[in-house]
Amino acid sequence: MSQLPQPTGAAITESAVPIRERMEALVRRKQKQICDGIEALETSEKTFGADSWQRGNDGGGGTSCILQNGDVFEKAGVNISVVYGALPPQAIARMKVDHKNLKASTEDGSVKFFACGLSLVIHPHNPHAPTTHANYRYFETWNEDGTPQAWWFGGGADLTPSYLYDEDAVLFHTKHKEALDKYDTTLYPRYKKWCDEYFYIKHREETRGVGGIFFDDFDSKPADEILTIIDTCIDAFLPSYVPTLHKRINMLFTEQEKQWQQVRRGRYVEFNLVLDRGTQFGLMTPGSRIESILMSLPMTAGWLYDHHPEEGSREARLVEVLKSPVEWC
Amino acid sequence: MSQLPQPTGAAITESAVPIRERMEALVRRKQKQICDGIEALETSEKTFGADSWQRGNDGGGGTSCILQNGDVFEKAGVNISVVYGALPPQAIARMKVDHKNLKASTEDGSVKFFACGLSLVIHPHNPHAPTTHANYRYFETWNEDGTPQAWWFGGGADLTPSYLYDEDAVLFHTKHKEALDKYDTTLYPRYKKWCDEYFYIKHREETRGVGGIFFDDFDSKPADEILTIIDTCIDAFLPSYVPTLHKRINMLFTEQEKQWQQVRRGRYVEFNLVLDRGTQFGLMTPGSRIESILMSLPMTAGWLYDHHPEEGSREARLVEVLKSPVEWC
Repeated sequence: MSQLPQPTGAAITESAVPIRERMEALVRRKQKQICDGIEALETSEKTFGADSWQRGNDGGGGTSCILQNGDVFEKAGVNISVVYGALPPQAIARMKVDHKNLKASTEDGSVKFFACGLSLVIHPHNPHAPTTHANYRYFETWNEDGTPQAWWFGGGADLTPSYLYDEDAVLFHTKHKEALDKYDTTLYPRYKKWCDEYFYIKHREETRGVGGIFFDDFDSKPADEILTIIDTCIDAFLPSYVPTLHKRINMLFTEQEKQWQQVRRGRYVEFNLVLDRGTQFGLMTPGSRIESILMSLPMTAGWLYDHHPEEGSREARLVEVLKSPVEWC
Repeated sequence: MSQLPQPTGAAITESAVPIRERMEALVRRKQKQICDGIEALETSEKTFGADSWQRGNDGGGGTSCILQNGDVFEKAGVNISVVYGALPPQAIARMKVDHKNLKASTEDGSVKFFACGLSLVIHPHNPHAPTTHANYRYFETWNEDGTPQAWWFGGGADLTPSYLYDEDAVLFHTKHKEALDKYDTTLYPRYKKWCDEYFYIKHREETRGVGGIFFDDFDSKPADEILTIIDTCIDAFLPSYVPTLHKRINMLFTEQEKQWQQVRRGRYVEFNLVLDRGTQFGLMTPGSRIESILMSLPMTAGWLYDHHPEEGSREARLVEVLKSPVEWC
């Protein structure tokens, strides 16, 4: 991890520092922690490589850390990005639905924005080890004269097993519930439900995985309070997932189990390419880094025509749960 | 192929028969011919299985013929569908861009429609053998009282190699050009260009493959004349592709060549899920058969982070051509 740019030094506790700088420092620090935590489980020589990139004509850039084709991890990516510039009118129109304060502030109808986030996806090789994803982000818009217009946080973490071990889902949900409960016990129930709704693959009539938490447009508490909540949520990630990896990554598996994992990964790709708002926003935004956006896609995936798991099988059990989300804790 | 529903008996030459019935008879007949032509090359015991399906509450249905996991063909699908009912206002709004005659004819703002088409995708196992796709369709709308409102044909065929053999692209284009030239020599140049434009993956700045022909909203000649053109185009399909399969399906290949094919298939999936209008229309349409729409997706695909072919390699040559389409004939 020596190539990784160092945190800027702004600490989350220094409240004189603007939120946007504190969020940036936070995601840089967490990126390193998470990469280290995941890398510790990889048994091959593979480590996370870091690619820093800059947006073409616009402001900002990011760092993508990828570990690919390892023995334990088929593909793991932990990205951060800090971008700013003018939001095109098309993007404003979309965002206005949820953000009434948003308005075009420049003559050409654009809005100045700042966005900063951490995004990770981990696809282990073993079909018994679940895929996971987390994303935490801060968004801010302002007027030509520099006065703020709107700001909000979004984020969440979710688990996508091919073979469902209830205890893995329980651990993942419990750790994230505990993180949120420290601040406000109304958050987990709402964000759990939001997660099930957001990751619903309409054309398949099933969710992408067994959920977790998801929230967007979070501006109903003071910004530094929300930043602390997000700090705690990100800290819950490794403890919610790593113990599961320890249990699963050395399990024996059959060719058929690997095949089923490929089918589930196909569904993962369907969600990300057809439905995920972040991916669609990225693909539409000029100058965005496609390889960082699409690092979420698995190294291998497949589509079997009209494949249905056998009744009563473990594969059928998973699909059942994806069709009627469970309260895990 | 014994399970395949028989053609209705309406022949394309009987001009008293409405175009919609003649198109239906045509696609049923061609489906059988194409399945037979492809199946003849498969060396395993696998044959095309036929699934007939009906639309839930709405009119029509279709037959999907799939050969999957063979020795030569990883996945081959030849579908027909004949569907009719009411177009939702949302779909009308989209279609109005190209069809000014379209207007809501019922009180709830919907339009009666009939759509009939043949759609095929063939993914051979060998990375030297190109994937191909063809689709020919007829669309008609009418008023509550049964009077016609608008009609048009659309279609095309295109080739997607992982390793480019110029002669394969030349054959594919030449056969389709010859088919169109019989009726109107202005068609091929326009449809070749349209194909390159339609199958452009904007976020990758490359086309999906080496093109072929593509057209939509074709109503500028008498309907029975267009039907004859389409008949001839579909007949050009097997001669444009099967000779290439004979040359390629027994070629030796390396693990690396197979890997590159997976990357190219990933791009194929990106186009189909993010950009293909037919797929998006299908996924949005209530009651459509998802498995038939998504049969186009390969049995295996992959995403390698930030993969770039070596300069001067065969892989790089392909990408070069995908970035600047070639005039093949």
